[in-house]
Amino acid sequence: MSEEVKKYLYIVTHGVESPERSASPFFLATTAALMDHESSMVFTITATSLLKKGVAETLRIKSSGESSTLQFFIDQAREAGVKLYVCAPSLDLNDCTVDDLIAIDGVVGGTALNEMAAEADVVISF
Amino acid sequence: MSEEVKKYLYIVTHGVESPERSASPFFLATTAALMDHESSMVFTITATSLLKKGVAETLRIKSSGESSTLQFFIDQAREAGVKLYVCAPSLDLNDCTVDDLIAIDGVVGGTALNEMAAEADVVISF
Amino acid sequence: MSEEVKKYLYIVTHGVESPERSASPFFLATTAALMDHESSMVFTITATSLLKKGVAETLRIKSSGESSTLQFFIDQAREAGVKLYVCAPSLDLNDCTVDDLIAIDGVVGGTALNEMAAEADVVISF
Repeated sequence: MSEEVKKYLYIVTHGVESPERSASPFFLATTAALMDHESSMVFTITATSLLKKGVAETLRIKSSGESSTLQFFIDQAREAGVKLYVCAPSLDLNDCTVDDLIAIDGVVGGTALNEMAAEADVVISF
Repeated sequence: MSEEVKKYLYIVTHGVESPERSASPFFLATTAALMDHESSMVFTITATSLLKKGVAETLRIKSSGESSTLQFFIDQAREAGVKLYVCAPSLDLNDCTVDDLIAIDGVVGGTALNEMAAEADVVISF
Repeated sequence: MSEEVKKYLYIVTHGVESPERSASPFFLATTAALMDHESSMVFTITATSLLKKGVAETLRIKSSGESSTLQFFIDQAREAGVKLYVCAPSLDLNDCTVDDLIAIDGVVGGTALNEMAAEADVVISF
């Protein structure tokens, strides 16, 4: 392939309080990964609540006239190779530890998050 | 002009549920276009609701002590040459088709949105 | 130091209506400044409300099991050298003048904000 591999970073800042906002970043991250780009998502502020075990299966997002669960979008992202990271301070903010979350690729502190953003070719916040 | 023409991309993610958030991205996009930059806005998640016919005329935003309608900001953006795009999945999420929207410059899928962000010199999410 | 100094710009768009969102951008901006990067924050839309005198001392954010006030995070940012700017139109939107705000480094119009974003190596919206 002649296409250049780019690094996409999606910073997700909204959580279970606004289910209608939850699917789009997964959808875009999946799309980037399927185009063979490096695609990562970092969850911060309340967004970490989306990754708590048992949440995604019950969070419904309207899609194509029907509704899908967030789990559908997470599964797609995982199958496409999207990496999921959680910002460390958001664990306390969301009253959880990493053991309360679905499988993720790592917990990042502020410095690591800043560096991921600096190294990415594209950063999109949601 | 010796100034370099840059590509500005504004990703708008909030809609009619928060009118006070609606004017700023149009204002900044207009400002960029007036400085002869390429200025585009993509509407996703609930932001697409801002472009439904009949909405902008009635959505009021406080400005300079008085209130302006969103239509004022959209008109300014249009006159300055700002391009307006809608993210395809947001049509379903906002219960509308492109026919329900004011005139836009195109509907973009996930891949196109990712590529627009990669090609932009500046990406700002709202 | 062999590390390259980068310019980080944090665009803050949410204010006192969502206290739980207020600390993270200060935290990340502080972290960037402590790593000897140039770190600036611009407050726009409702975020300018966070800088009104008397607000940060009473706005509580959960942190490490306890709660801290936003003032704690602002003080950390200031000590680390983070610059604070306010987007001009947000003053009207938040019913205030610059005199109602804590000490900041400047008020920026749309063109200046766009240029700050263009000159930054990293732009993250919150």
